[in-house]
Amino acid sequence: MSTNGFHPAADDFRAARERIRPYICTTPLLRADPLERGGKRVFLKPENLQRTGSFKVRGAFNAAASFSPETKARGAVAFSSGNHGTAVALAMRELGLQERGQPYKCVVVMPEGANPVKTARVRALGAEVVFCGKTVAERQAKAEELAMQNGYGVIPSYDHKRIICGQGTLGLEIMDQWIALPSHPGPLHLVAAPVGGGGLMAGVAAALRAGYFDGRIVGVEPENANDTLQSLARGERVTIGAPVTICDGLCSTTPGKLTFPILKQFLEGVVTVSDEQVRAAVAFLLSEMKLLVEPSGAVAVAAWMCGLLDNPPHAPPRQEQAGDVVLVVSGGNVDPRLALAWLMGFEA
Amino acid sequence: MSTNGFHPAADDFRAARERIRPYICTTPLLRADPLERGGKRVFLKPENLQRTGSFKVRGAFNAAASFSPETKARGAVAFSSGNHGTAVALAMRELGLQERGQPYKCVVVMPEGANPVKTARVRALGAEVVFCGKTVAERQAKAEELAMQNGYGVIPSYDHKRIICGQGTLGLEIMDQWIALPSHPGPLHLVAAPVGGGGLMAGVAAALRAGYFDGRIVGVEPENANDTLQSLARGERVTIGAPVTICDGLCSTTPGKLTFPILKQFLEGVVTVSDEQVRAAVAFLLSEMKLLVEPSGAVAVAAWMCGLLDNPPHAPPRQEQAGDVVLVVSGGNVDPRLALAWLMGFEA
Repeated sequence: MSTNGFHPAADDFRAARERIRPYICTTPLLRADPLERGGKRVFLKPENLQRTGSFKVRGAFNAAASFSPETKARGAVAFSSGNHGTAVALAMRELGLQERGQPYKCVVVMPEGANPVKTARVRALGAEVVFCGKTVAERQAKAEELAMQNGYGVIPSYDHKRIICGQGTLGLEIMDQWIALPSHPGPLHLVAAPVGGGGLMAGVAAALRAGYFDGRIVGVEPENANDTLQSLARGERVTIGAPVTICDGLCSTTPGKLTFPILKQFLEGVVTVSDEQVRAAVAFLLSEMKLLVEPSGAVAVAAWMCGLLDNPPHAPPRQEQAGDVVLVVSGGNVDPRLALAWLMGFEA
Repeated sequence: MSTNGFHPAADDFRAARERIRPYICTTPLLRADPLERGGKRVFLKPENLQRTGSFKVRGAFNAAASFSPETKARGAVAFSSGNHGTAVALAMRELGLQERGQPYKCVVVMPEGANPVKTARVRALGAEVVFCGKTVAERQAKAEELAMQNGYGVIPSYDHKRIICGQGTLGLEIMDQWIALPSHPGPLHLVAAPVGGGGLMAGVAAALRAGYFDGRIVGVEPENANDTLQSLARGERVTIGAPVTICDGLCSTTPGKLTFPILKQFLEGVVTVSDEQVRAAVAFLLSEMKLLVEPSGAVAVAAWMCGLLDNPPHAPPRQEQAGDVVLVVSGGNVDPRLALAWLMGFEA
């Protein structure tokens, strides 16, 4: 184990949970009968039902609530064209309303030509949108410039201690809810979650291990955005070219400086899924589980449906063994027309 | 208050909860930010995420688990073309597997020409399907005949003590979950739920009142299936003609003998919604709440969206007042293509 880096402990996750408790939903651990096979019960953790439609509010509230009163009063800036921006906008709005009767200032840097639906969602929460460039690097530089000029606190989307601990509250919830189930035909064998920059997966993995979970933890990436798979194979952070995938929330090109060592330490591994497999999972979740899930949010379900999570790599197939599986469903912000097209077998 | 009739007490609901706990999901109390107005927080109780996609498993497991060992060994019969039949099939299957290692016998009487998708769902759970006639009365007579011949236990869909108590566990869950919320800006003002035969609404209302809930309880019916509204106005059970509505789960023509007195005692009233209002609610729930909800399941949300639940009838509009509203979403078994068509503004 490296002697530097970030090693969150159980208390860090518990503190985050207390900090964000007033603002987030407890999403259920949802039994997914149609996914069961091989003696396993399967549960979904559907964060598409979380406020703003994704898990991102967990980290956003944890980071925003941790700012000093002075920083909060000046405001926060985030760079994101997706769920993280919306989450930060909600956090600054609600914390401000609660603490001083009016929203705190929030700026979200989005790419030029950003999806107007996403822009409108951020603005509807009272945040200011600043357009800048096309790349993450450009947006990050702009956000840091605005922070320098205005004294804003920066809320990065994954590579940040408070973000990792906030997302890790999902791991605490999974353990609490699994333990509270009325029956346990076997142990909790496996927890699988999507991996982009790794904030969610690192937080969940570290929180589970801090709670002495000793089952399998597996990350899932799109096959065209497999930076973490490659990095784990190489033993160090690899940067890939701009990914082309329908999983727009998992298009990181390299794992985070803080998240990668955690992933390396705690994950059994990463498996990858194709866009076609993801479309099938989105369609299944809509028709059978009554859940609208965005492509990025469905990768762990896709991997399970394709049998990619049944056995550890290189292990001989195991006997059927009773026990439970938890698949994290991370978000639901997708045009329902796309989900339906996929259900009907189109590649739209 | 009548001296006969069925008056379930808190202990009846608690016993039902213990009986069905191993078999059902705890669905969340889900914050619905986009529905908030007038200082109210709005929460959904999304039973479309319940096993089999509707609340019906609560009553079905409670009724089936209450049979004597001898009756269970002979089997059960239900008459239903919808969610109740699936729920009874699951209950007899799981109880049998648990108690003797193989499913108990289950027969579901469905109308001739029943939707093959629904028939297949019941059969996939191991139940036998018997087709009979077109009307509820014909199916009920057939079910009772089969019960007489074979010693089956009959599990009616709503007018039955165990069914009412099973559905009422939803009311206990709402109270438990509401009390456990991290903040309470005001009281729980209102609980609204769909009304068909009244099993769900009677169970929830009686459980809430048994728990000393003193807020408003309002039922919601389709305007073309307003038998309970008419019955409450008349003070006695009214029978209406066969309703024409997209809410196929709420097509009862008269409230139940057991359910009606409970509704009369505990409901502030019933409001009605049009099919057009229901379509808008289904579309909203899909795009904004990420939930696939069947028309019957969306009527309470439709009523809230249309402002029909804001104030008690005949009361002057109240000042904005902080507090919470819970809307029961009862099921999700609808073709996603219909939900999408409604989202796009078609009446398909």
